[in-house]
Amino acid sequence: MRTKAAVAVAPGQPLEVMEVNLEGPRAGEVLVEIKATGLCHTDEFTRSGDDPEGIFPAILGHEGAGVVIEVGEGVTSLEVGDHVIPLYTPECRECDYCLNPKTNLCQSIRTTQGQGLLPDGSTRFSMLDGTPIHHYMGCSTFANHTVVPEIALAKVRKDAPFDKICYIGCGVTTGIGAVINTAKVEIGSTAIVFGLGGIGLNVIQGLKLAGADQIVGVDLNDSKVEMATHFGMTDFVNPSKVEGDMVAHLVEITGGGADYTFDATGNVNVMRTALEAAHKGWGESIIIGVAPAGAEISTRPFQLVTGRVWRGTAFGGASGRTDVPKIVDWYMDGKIEIDPMITHKLSLEQINEGFELMHKGESIRAVVEF
Amino acid sequence: MRTKAAVAVAPGQPLEVMEVNLEGPRAGEVLVEIKATGLCHTDEFTRSGDDPEGIFPAILGHEGAGVVIEVGEGVTSLEVGDHVIPLYTPECRECDYCLNPKTNLCQSIRTTQGQGLLPDGSTRFSMLDGTPIHHYMGCSTFANHTVVPEIALAKVRKDAPFDKICYIGCGVTTGIGAVINTAKVEIGSTAIVFGLGGIGLNVIQGLKLAGADQIVGVDLNDSKVEMATHFGMTDFVNPSKVEGDMVAHLVEITGGGADYTFDATGNVNVMRTALEAAHKGWGESIIIGVAPAGAEISTRPFQLVTGRVWRGTAFGGASGRTDVPKIVDWYMDGKIEIDPMITHKLSLEQINEGFELMHKGESIRAVVEF
Repeated sequence: MRTKAAVAVAPGQPLEVMEVNLEGPRAGEVLVEIKATGLCHTDEFTRSGDDPEGIFPAILGHEGAGVVIEVGEGVTSLEVGDHVIPLYTPECRECDYCLNPKTNLCQSIRTTQGQGLLPDGSTRFSMLDGTPIHHYMGCSTFANHTVVPEIALAKVRKDAPFDKICYIGCGVTTGIGAVINTAKVEIGSTAIVFGLGGIGLNVIQGLKLAGADQIVGVDLNDSKVEMATHFGMTDFVNPSKVEGDMVAHLVEITGGGADYTFDATGNVNVMRTALEAAHKGWGESIIIGVAPAGAEISTRPFQLVTGRVWRGTAFGGASGRTDVPKIVDWYMDGKIEIDPMITHKLSLEQINEGFELMHKGESIRAVVEF
Repeated sequence: MRTKAAVAVAPGQPLEVMEVNLEGPRAGEVLVEIKATGLCHTDEFTRSGDDPEGIFPAILGHEGAGVVIEVGEGVTSLEVGDHVIPLYTPECRECDYCLNPKTNLCQSIRTTQGQGLLPDGSTRFSMLDGTPIHHYMGCSTFANHTVVPEIALAKVRKDAPFDKICYIGCGVTTGIGAVINTAKVEIGSTAIVFGLGGIGLNVIQGLKLAGADQIVGVDLNDSKVEMATHFGMTDFVNPSKVEGDMVAHLVEITGGGADYTFDATGNVNVMRTALEAAHKGWGESIIIGVAPAGAEISTRPFQLVTGRVWRGTAFGGASGRTDVPKIVDWYMDGKIEIDPMITHKLSLEQINEGFELMHKGESIRAVVEF
């Protein structure tokens, strides 16, 4: 079949919206009509050419929602008409990782996924001239139709709006999951969130959901205060307005350091501040942000010897097929909010404008609707 | 009273054995006759002048065992004749840290302890000319008699030999506790221990006690193999004999990385190797060793985002008054061994020879008996 997609033809170039060929699903695969997709910084990281592992041409996008159009041979957990969210971290429920409750990093199709291929080592997308187009994070949601492995699709309720729940495919789950699955924040905890963008806001609402007493937000942009406060932030710190040492300031306002700190900036210097602003003895710092290629975190080992713990999280520690449907329920039940964070709606043809909004810091989330 | 002590008169100088003045215990303090004391690398770190927080003159030593000679006003948990192990990490059971099950870092007397003073801000030791001599880590076990706060003394059974259980005051508890209290190693785990000295061997016996399946020891010195094997090591790696990347080699022999890795070297490069040799998804690396002043650990944040956890431990996460008596019982019951690790016995007059043995790598533990 043919479908319309925004193709990343080369590093650093704007996406090109075009008709592409799409083969039908093979064994274990599912053809999905994408109804909506968010634009995430990770897409931009690859589009821009900064991602050393970026492969071109490719159809980017990993934060989508849609409907099953066709299932391949052997697919048993999904049928035509099911509503689904593609998962860049699949959940095969059979590999050593899926069977270990300490991790969500299913490895069953990791190698091919990292090569921009489906598990059988080939692509379903191609240019009209036949040139193969790579998949991206196993999702490629910047296309009106895409083919995804069955194990990389979360089945969700049919009454949930696509233009909101697509965000659960990455940002919402990453932020809330970092709190609930990775940090396992307890009621009454204190926390600091660095970076009040699309991930940080979800960390904040995760902290509110978990019953944190104090939720300090840190951002260089004062315009983030209103939204962050809406989601549960109790204190705001703009580092550019802090005189003296930032760690000392944060330790002071949290009464000795926070029980949990979260980096949602991807800046390795901020990651260090986050670790050192965690409470001596028991504070845990969770890295969510993706750092530039080659960047390293560092600190004095004394920071860890005196009881701080340094962790990271990917996809919020969520096992997608199991956890994503629950988060969709939370949204539909009003336990969490998504609507205020979807600040811009675009057509596929406007997708490059979405990246411009991201750069200007004007959007929390821009969503493309098909 | 007067007692005999090995005094660190100035940084980098050999200890000087001399008669010193010792005042009796004030309120909340206890006079202890030290019967035996181990020599630890931390003592040497301070003696050598490398410790930027070292204070002189001081009576070093923090790994002792002895008998209560006199109790000060208000002391209720100890009486004359009790056998005790001084604790450089006290346990007041009242501060925010003692009341938090996530940490053992009692802070109740930390400030004065760090200044080489008892909690009332003064010293009990002085030179015969009246010059005050500082306490060290709240213990000062390189003296035949010392004064220690009640909350910094673990009461232990009277049939346990002082020349062995003194080692429980630091090395044994630090190593075993890192496994049991900090890492909480599960039965069947795989582990790597970097550094097979006095701490590393106790990590190994802690791992054996915890039921680890594979215990890889790493040391540059092949002569460590026999003792480490005796304590439970299943595989040995000498990094100087590994061709290619050390992390890749360790990941290979542990089948993907170890569930738990422990640094007992204090070398920040080894700490990085230890973290990166932990298993993707769930591996935890625990820093035990004390790094040189100003040294920093570093890694790519990707190592944490993909599920590794970086921790540290102090005194093995043990709450001394509660846990040290249990470890003494384990020793007396034959659950753990100490005797083979006490490789040298010295008199106080020979104490500087003990540091020479340490530098030559000839001793695991040298113990001074009074």
